[in-house]
Amino acid sequence: MLSFVNDYSCGAHEKVLEALCKINLEPNVGYGMDPYSERAKEKIRAACNCPDAEIFFLVGGTQTNQVVIDTMLQPYEGVVAATTGHVALHEAGAIEYSGHKVLTLPHHDGKVDADDLRQMLKLFYADDNHEHMVFPGMVYVSHPTENGTLYTKKELSDIAEICRAYEMPLFLDGARLGYGLASEETDLTLEDIARLCDVFYIGGTKVGALFGEAVVFTKKNMPRHFVAQVKQHGALLAKGFLLGVQFDALFTDGLYQEIGRHAMEMAKLLKEVLTEKGCVFHQQSPTNQQYIVVENGYMKELEKKVRFSFWETVDDAHTAIRFVTSWATKKEDVLALRDIL
Amino acid sequence: MLSFVNDYSCGAHEKVLEALCKINLEPNVGYGMDPYSERAKEKIRAACNCPDAEIFFLVGGTQTNQVVIDTMLQPYEGVVAATTGHVALHEAGAIEYSGHKVLTLPHHDGKVDADDLRQMLKLFYADDNHEHMVFPGMVYVSHPTENGTLYTKKELSDIAEICRAYEMPLFLDGARLGYGLASEETDLTLEDIARLCDVFYIGGTKVGALFGEAVVFTKKNMPRHFVAQVKQHGALLAKGFLLGVQFDALFTDGLYQEIGRHAMEMAKLLKEVLTEKGCVFHQQSPTNQQYIVVENGYMKELEKKVRFSFWETVDDAHTAIRFVTSWATKKEDVLALRDIL
Amino acid sequence: MLSFVNDYSCGAHEKVLEALCKINLEPNVGYGMDPYSERAKEKIRAACNCPDAEIFFLVGGTQTNQVVIDTMLQPYEGVVAATTGHVALHEAGAIEYSGHKVLTLPHHDGKVDADDLRQMLKLFYADDNHEHMVFPGMVYVSHPTENGTLYTKKELSDIAEICRAYEMPLFLDGARLGYGLASEETDLTLEDIARLCDVFYIGGTKVGALFGEAVVFTKKNMPRHFVAQVKQHGALLAKGFLLGVQFDALFTDGLYQEIGRHAMEMAKLLKEVLTEKGCVFHQQSPTNQQYIVVENGYMKELEKKVRFSFWETVDDAHTAIRFVTSWATKKEDVLALRDIL
Amino acid sequence: MLSFVNDYSCGAHEKVLEALCKINLEPNVGYGMDPYSERAKEKIRAACNCPDAEIFFLVGGTQTNQVVIDTMLQPYEGVVAATTGHVALHEAGAIEYSGHKVLTLPHHDGKVDADDLRQMLKLFYADDNHEHMVFPGMVYVSHPTENGTLYTKKELSDIAEICRAYEMPLFLDGARLGYGLASEETDLTLEDIARLCDVFYIGGTKVGALFGEAVVFTKKNMPRHFVAQVKQHGALLAKGFLLGVQFDALFTDGLYQEIGRHAMEMAKLLKEVLTEKGCVFHQQSPTNQQYIVVENGYMKELEKKVRFSFWETVDDAHTAIRFVTSWATKKEDVLALRDIL
Repeated sequence: MLSFVNDYSCGAHEKVLEALCKINLEPNVGYGMDPYSERAKEKIRAACNCPDAEIFFLVGGTQTNQVVIDTMLQPYEGVVAATTGHVALHEAGAIEYSGHKVLTLPHHDGKVDADDLRQMLKLFYADDNHEHMVFPGMVYVSHPTENGTLYTKKELSDIAEICRAYEMPLFLDGARLGYGLASEETDLTLEDIARLCDVFYIGGTKVGALFGEAVVFTKKNMPRHFVAQVKQHGALLAKGFLLGVQFDALFTDGLYQEIGRHAMEMAKLLKEVLTEKGCVFHQQSPTNQQYIVVENGYMKELEKKVRFSFWETVDDAHTAIRFVTSWATKKEDVLALRDIL
Repeated sequence: MLSFVNDYSCGAHEKVLEALCKINLEPNVGYGMDPYSERAKEKIRAACNCPDAEIFFLVGGTQTNQVVIDTMLQPYEGVVAATTGHVALHEAGAIEYSGHKVLTLPHHDGKVDADDLRQMLKLFYADDNHEHMVFPGMVYVSHPTENGTLYTKKELSDIAEICRAYEMPLFLDGARLGYGLASEETDLTLEDIARLCDVFYIGGTKVGALFGEAVVFTKKNMPRHFVAQVKQHGALLAKGFLLGVQFDALFTDGLYQEIGRHAMEMAKLLKEVLTEKGCVFHQQSPTNQQYIVVENGYMKELEKKVRFSFWETVDDAHTAIRFVTSWATKKEDVLALRDIL
Repeated sequence: MLSFVNDYSCGAHEKVLEALCKINLEPNVGYGMDPYSERAKEKIRAACNCPDAEIFFLVGGTQTNQVVIDTMLQPYEGVVAATTGHVALHEAGAIEYSGHKVLTLPHHDGKVDADDLRQMLKLFYADDNHEHMVFPGMVYVSHPTENGTLYTKKELSDIAEICRAYEMPLFLDGARLGYGLASEETDLTLEDIARLCDVFYIGGTKVGALFGEAVVFTKKNMPRHFVAQVKQHGALLAKGFLLGVQFDALFTDGLYQEIGRHAMEMAKLLKEVLTEKGCVFHQQSPTNQQYIVVENGYMKELEKKVRFSFWETVDDAHTAIRFVTSWATKKEDVLALRDIL
Repeated sequence: MLSFVNDYSCGAHEKVLEALCKINLEPNVGYGMDPYSERAKEKIRAACNCPDAEIFFLVGGTQTNQVVIDTMLQPYEGVVAATTGHVALHEAGAIEYSGHKVLTLPHHDGKVDADDLRQMLKLFYADDNHEHMVFPGMVYVSHPTENGTLYTKKELSDIAEICRAYEMPLFLDGARLGYGLASEETDLTLEDIARLCDVFYIGGTKVGALFGEAVVFTKKNMPRHFVAQVKQHGALLAKGFLLGVQFDALFTDGLYQEIGRHAMEMAKLLKEVLTEKGCVFHQQSPTNQQYIVVENGYMKELEKKVRFSFWETVDDAHTAIRFVTSWATKKEDVLALRDIL
């Protein structure tokens, strides 16, 4: 059945899969010490224009958030996030499991606002009692956000400036980074992100890889004995070369960018189709996730012909649903959707 | 270069890789709710002759040990293991990270001995003070062990009987289970294991899969809300179908057994070659890991021609080294080794 | 200097201290297995009209919250609390340290509202994705709250009913319980609390003891091997009899009630004095904590003559400050304050 | 009944109790910011000849071990201890609860041996695989040990030297320190301990206080935001002044030393009595814990007249039992024991 349900329902981009098939019988050293991983890291450093970047490949998103946050925070610190942030809502308490509180700020279309952050920090340090509270130790943003929105260069710079002032690392969750970079609706580049953030990750799982996220520490700040800490979290992949090979492919000849562009073209087409069909948008999204409001009876009909995802209940008679494009979306899929709507 | 360094240096068995390639562009639901995962589970239930088995696929070994042990133990309980057990030595403290002590017993060629276990439990409960100690809450064995050895049906039954008496689950780490099942030197079958253990896992990473371990709960004892708990550990793979597809392939037409047999044939040939060449065995191993003692100068020479792994220092002049066969080992590799030795 | 800074700045009520002095040289068994602890438990069971209650004495409030919440929750569960709840704000992340999220509801004068709770639970279980979220596993209320307010019997009953429906324990933090019970502005009795809550604690530290909190499990629901779990949290007092002796004294001849009444009389007098002096109340409080708004210059003057505590900034020119009475407050203290104001 | 069961069965030395009674109605600031705590710290700094020492008062021994070890270790580090160490055996897994492994060395009469330690560290760092293992991050010794034995200055210096070489803090558990310092059988002084250790604690609970342990950080190495971290562990006493007042009394006019001397005189007398009565010593102990082997029938008789503690089973017919003296032991108690034996 036609599917716009999410961006992680297919395997890998054919070039990524080919690369995996090609080295399949080659013996490689384990735990990411292989030459493919090294090569992929070099290419990512170049793409980020960050020659000093320390890079580590992990398997999945929640795992990456848990490992990065837990290893970069002091035990008495929490991570600041928007109420809609993945770490705040949809990781089954993986951050708390590792001992840290998620300190929430109201979201603005899924984004953290610099003024809110400044105010929170000011109040915290003004409170005589703050040794009895959780210290804000890091700021977490996602880009694109869970709502499909994007930070501008100005917005992220403002947040980064506050983080510098308070000596807190800024962490950007780039699970869907490829789609954000390809959107025309932000001026924020990969280089900017590498410059402004202390750590971020380049999502592979949702952007062309079978699985895998590339964590980039930009300021010579990879936590000490990181391999041991990753292992301790149960997150060290024995065959680390599988991650290296995939990211090597993704960062060869601009494949990662190409994937992003393709999905965004499909998203644009999808938006046109939805508009043309008179759909009501639930919220504006400049990326590969599009949200519309439908009448419940119509939704039930639609479910028989195309897969999408439930977003939230709007009122007794209406529901917001989400359509997602990805590297795997074909033009004919979107056109088929037009016929259905 | 010729490699006998370990059993996780290549990708996947060709049939596993083919299966992955075949479904690559098919949209599948996430988190292991896909039909391939369901099919694989059915086949594993059949192979174990355990129709009630609840099965969950995870990515790697340490992750699996951490998740299983942490979710099955009460907070005040620890896991009993041999001093050589992977969880006791080589998981960077992943078990303690999750809050549990590893209570060690002396190893017997890498194995836990039933008498030692019985004695430990007797002493523990006889101690008036035991509420101030860590409760033994589970027994962990690996099969094959880290030393390449195997339990007999009698040995595992004796341990299982004690576990029943004390109402402690018995957990078998089968990271290399395929090779253990194919060895002629034990009478312990997959069905026996499913019957005797409360939980065990069938290793994929080292036995033909790209990655993946199939956890089998045999007594209707999968921990409540297991998906949430796996997610909380950062261990839930978004594209769970990648695991399902691989285990479906491994348990189709006896591939898992075939892989085990092949590696064991290669191990047998390797053993013959080592014997023929007059090598001194460091310890007897009935599985795919073979250990010999070499003079250090000779070792340095050998390193130039073939990859193997350091096992342990024997004395100032000698070192124990390990050669490992796997599904990927070819007969000509072993013969090439003969020419080198 | 005259002090209304809090209710934990003096030692113990004279009768409690006498009891400690009296048994000082008597050898007693450790860890709470002594006869004084047993006697105190009997008296508390009687006071609560809960003959089956299982009782355990701990040293302090945050410790008690951490131990109770951590030992009663499943690993994948969090505790629901008002945003103003002590566990949400002022325990330096002690709950998250033990692996659990605090799921917050908006506060209503410091209280949790039954409708908010019902709505949260309904939304949680309606969400298809809730296995990726933290399960609400317990409700935490404080009585009196951090804002000095009190639940009525109706309000607590409504919350308790929801808890029963969802099979979640209801936990009442009674750090200042004695003062709440003595207030005329609620109909909620100790017996009601024992009946409605699954677990609660009777605060000693702030209500006449040197230190100590009596945790009462009302439904035969004390977590298994609780001594071991308390020890594991570093919370088991070697000389547990010190706690038993104090609570024995507090529950002899109605001392705990008398202490509450006295502090409430002092609070009433304080309120009259503040009203008489034209003070503006920041919020209404029916208990021993009174909050007024003062002009900042005046506050600076006041600080030279009497100790009180900062509550919160109201605007650039005004601050809310808190005056607290306790078992140790004397009538002449309040009258001396009148002269100062 | 006559009791030699342990050194924590009575309240506090009369001078300590008097000090508590004296300040009982004085309002004091909370959380250890009071002048008594400050004064006690000054006196301890002087007694240790360590003017820079940072001192923090905690309530109990296991709590102290947990807080010190957890806050001083990196997450990937464990603590090295003898198999008989309190942290290894009798804290219900409090160290593992905080995420750290206890790495054990064989004990020598309860003590860690420098050569064993050196060998463990050498092997650890020589192992190529050590990033997959728990890093030894701290050495824990108790003095007196759980077996009643004492380190000599030479023995502790040797361990300290290794710790310096590996940049690992040395932590001394002084739960019974007063008795160790008063023993004639070691040349190790309080000043030596402050010089050689990075952190240690001066036990109060067993040495004259109602409760309390004084943690001494000797190298300007108190963990950052220690108050917050203590709070996070549920270990911050609201009325911290209770600890300050007690340690102030203990370090006034040599009371702590006097208490130690008294208990050691009683231990000497006890030893003479036991020798005179022909008792067989289970192990030699130079401190306030004495261990003898008795025939089981005799033990049963003895239990009716005097309280002692079970130590361990020797054989089917014999048991090792322990007699302990303390600040509270009277000469007539020991003489009464002579009459019983």
